Amino acid sequence: MKNSDTLRDVRMHMNEVLREIYEYIDKNSQRFVEDLIRLCKQPSISTQNVGINDCVDLVQSMMGEVGIETEIIQTKGHPMLLGLQKFEGADKTIGFYNHYDVQPPEPLELWETPPFNADIREDKIFARGVSDNKGDLIARIKAIEAIKEVVGLAPANVKFFIEGEEEIGSPNLAPSVKEHMPRIRADGYIWEGGGVDGKGRPVVSLGVKGILYTEMKAKCTVTDVHSARAPLVPNPAWRLVWALNTLKDRDERIKIAGWYEDVKPPTEEEVKLLESSPFEEEEMKERLGLKEFLLKRTGVDALKYLYFTPTCTICGFDAGYKGPGLKTVLPQEAMVKVGFRLAHAMNPDILFPKLVDHLERHGFGDVEVTKLAGYEPCKTSVDDPFARFVIEKLTEVYLDKPVVWPTSAGTSPMYTIKNRMGVPVVSGGGVGYPESRAHAPNENIRIKDYLRSIKFVATLITSF
Amino acid sequence: MKNSDTLRDVRMHMNEVLREIYEYIDKNSQRFVEDLIRLCKQPSISTQNVGINDCVDLVQSMMGEVGIETEIIQTKGHPMLLGLQKFEGADKTIGFYNHYDVQPPEPLELWETPPFNADIREDKIFARGVSDNKGDLIARIKAIEAIKEVVGLAPANVKFFIEGEEEIGSPNLAPSVKEHMPRIRADGYIWEGGGVDGKGRPVVSLGVKGILYTEMKAKCTVTDVHSARAPLVPNPAWRLVWALNTLKDRDERIKIAGWYEDVKPPTEEEVKLLESSPFEEEEMKERLGLKEFLLKRTGVDALKYLYFTPTCTICGFDAGYKGPGLKTVLPQEAMVKVGFRLAHAMNPDILFPKLVDHLERHGFGDVEVTKLAGYEPCKTSVDDPFARFVIEKLTEVYLDKPVVWPTSAGTSPMYTIKNRMGVPVVSGGGVGYPESRAHAPNENIRIKDYLRSIKFVATLITSF
Repeated sequence: MKNSDTLRDVRMHMNEVLREIYEYIDKNSQRFVEDLIRLCKQPSISTQNVGINDCVDLVQSMMGEVGIETEIIQTKGHPMLLGLQKFEGADKTIGFYNHYDVQPPEPLELWETPPFNADIREDKIFARGVSDNKGDLIARIKAIEAIKEVVGLAPANVKFFIEGEEEIGSPNLAPSVKEHMPRIRADGYIWEGGGVDGKGRPVVSLGVKGILYTEMKAKCTVTDVHSARAPLVPNPAWRLVWALNTLKDRDERIKIAGWYEDVKPPTEEEVKLLESSPFEEEEMKERLGLKEFLLKRTGVDALKYLYFTPTCTICGFDAGYKGPGLKTVLPQEAMVKVGFRLAHAMNPDILFPKLVDHLERHGFGDVEVTKLAGYEPCKTSVDDPFARFVIEKLTEVYLDKPVVWPTSAGTSPMYTIKNRMGVPVVSGGGVGYPESRAHAPNENIRIKDYLRSIKFVATLITSF
Repeated sequence: MKNSDTLRDVRMHMNEVLREIYEYIDKNSQRFVEDLIRLCKQPSISTQNVGINDCVDLVQSMMGEVGIETEIIQTKGHPMLLGLQKFEGADKTIGFYNHYDVQPPEPLELWETPPFNADIREDKIFARGVSDNKGDLIARIKAIEAIKEVVGLAPANVKFFIEGEEEIGSPNLAPSVKEHMPRIRADGYIWEGGGVDGKGRPVVSLGVKGILYTEMKAKCTVTDVHSARAPLVPNPAWRLVWALNTLKDRDERIKIAGWYEDVKPPTEEEVKLLESSPFEEEEMKERLGLKEFLLKRTGVDALKYLYFTPTCTICGFDAGYKGPGLKTVLPQEAMVKVGFRLAHAMNPDILFPKLVDHLERHGFGDVEVTKLAGYEPCKTSVDDPFARFVIEKLTEVYLDKPVVWPTSAGTSPMYTIKNRMGVPVVSGGGVGYPESRAHAPNENIRIKDYLRSIKFVATLITSF
């Protein structure tokens, strides 16, 4: 195929087009690996504010190298980067979400080679961020290059939506998306992540849980008090213990009025996905050091709880004396961090006032509660045409049936695309594998997964 | 009077004897202050193991200077010091409990003059430990000197029982007392402390609460876990919150079966003491920053709770992430320090198994509970002849009616004397005043209180 062909020719000769694109990717694989290494050598630690602007400039120039139009969008935090690749005659748009920031590399002493050296060992690239998610990002840019070099045409324009605060909870994402919605909007979005499982099968996830993360504080006196005075002086740690006890009991059911009002149970189709999923229950228990899961949950039932029920988790509790031995102190204040994961289709903005009201009505108006984060859950139906298209292309490229999770137990700002714009979002075809060690020392990807991810992205765009 | 007189002469001419002793004390006051300063300049910080042996040697030599027989008793921790002053013909024994160790002086920057300089300003001596309780200790040694120099006779022998671990909870006291009981035993004991109140009235306390100090731990997994897994993974912080909730509810009543079995309510006489006590309720609330006491307790009712009911206090709670912002972690373990104050006549050795059993029966057998300290409460009756004698002598020396508290809300190892040997114990006639700042920077005593304390101790011994 040549750049002089028309989009109609491309569609008619798709197999040939893809074969040529794959050949191009294979021929240029060494350069593609070098470019990924180039990006991995550039630190971009959002939480420590290390290398952010240099990284944005580098990503922008690497996108420029393949002719993608880019624009840096300033936010209240680290900048976002928008990219646009137009193709002649394309009447649809496919979007890619990525982030250029990475987790801190500490503890450094556990890395076999320095985290920003990006060394290759045994056909793997080791670097902080190579899996999460600089590999995904460069794979997508390189897929554009391959398409442009080989055929120069595609049925879909491509948008890049790249943030720099994913690893610190995307605090500025929602307002930025709202402000720049027309430039971000697409017909379907591919999220970050979604690599292959231990058997080499591509893993697809169609959604995320939401979160309402809160901090509760009680303060009773102006200083710590000698605990001898306990018969007369209120204790803020007890206040929080009693308040927490009204939130959830040992049956794990959250006791706040109306908390479950908007929860949607899994559809029949989703339960089928869970039933056919490779849930490695025993391995998971062993890794955690558990004899059994909470409340003896097991099998598909455990998965239903994992993916489709809200939670109320004490993530931290701080009060008084925590050192060795004893100190007879009555603490002046106490603090607890409580994270509520939200199942489909709960809304943190509706739930937070219910929590405040609950505390008030149960006699804990003195407990000061602050919302630290609120993400909506979101989910794309497995029957959505975009989801089906992605699953179909994964099957073609990976020559194996994908493992499809109807949603995931974690949280990401996916709702800014799915819920705000009604655009389907799928996570799949990423560069990771089970030993990628995202967020941990010796983060790595396999070069073969990286190259296949480039091929998958090119296939997706070319076939859209 | 002269040293050639008999005990009978002394008894017959008590007023004259005391006048001469008081004169001796006044005449030697400067040297007595210098000797106190000498001891205060010697650090003896038990928790940091600073200066302990040098301090023991110094106390021993200062006791030797006035001719008190001494012996150092080694313990598993810091040594104890026993002292004996025999008087010809004496048929009774009065004992004095003191400790030579002091609290750490930190924060040093808040001291106006260095804590171990023992500077005099405005007729006050400023030093770590001068009030708690080197002042009491030297006052008692100097009273012996005065008696010996002036009259050389007393109706009671005197025993000194001095430990070096009071500020770290007296971990080795009970077994040492048991081992050396005959040498420690006396007909009545004066404890440390018990100075004057804001109006100059001597304060007497006839007992202490006990304590059972525990640490509870829950551990669920081998590492911290991503909170997304909360539907399947038990949370140790929730385990402790629910366990604590079974211990005590908002009515402050402890819900452990049989917890109140041995609690003795105050006697009529004790209630009368509370009713006539100068309880400065509003000042106390203001200092604590409270609008009202716990459960709106007030007046004599508040005092009954303060002195005669057990408590269950969360002194510290530690779990998961306690820093700023959010971390979606499910902690692998959680710890709470719970201090139970014990009212008369509860026993920590009986209660601890009840606590363990309670947790087990309520489904918290997984919560590991450790006893960090156990002190019995103890109390000497206000009708006890020794207590009445002390109160009478205080009235004579201080020319004012003492404020008598039937017990106190705090805890000390007084039970090693009172409960183990049946010896009455009274705290009164000490060197402190309301602004002494024990345990705080700029600890100090007034020289006039120190000299009067010496006179009181000499009176007590001479009149016993």
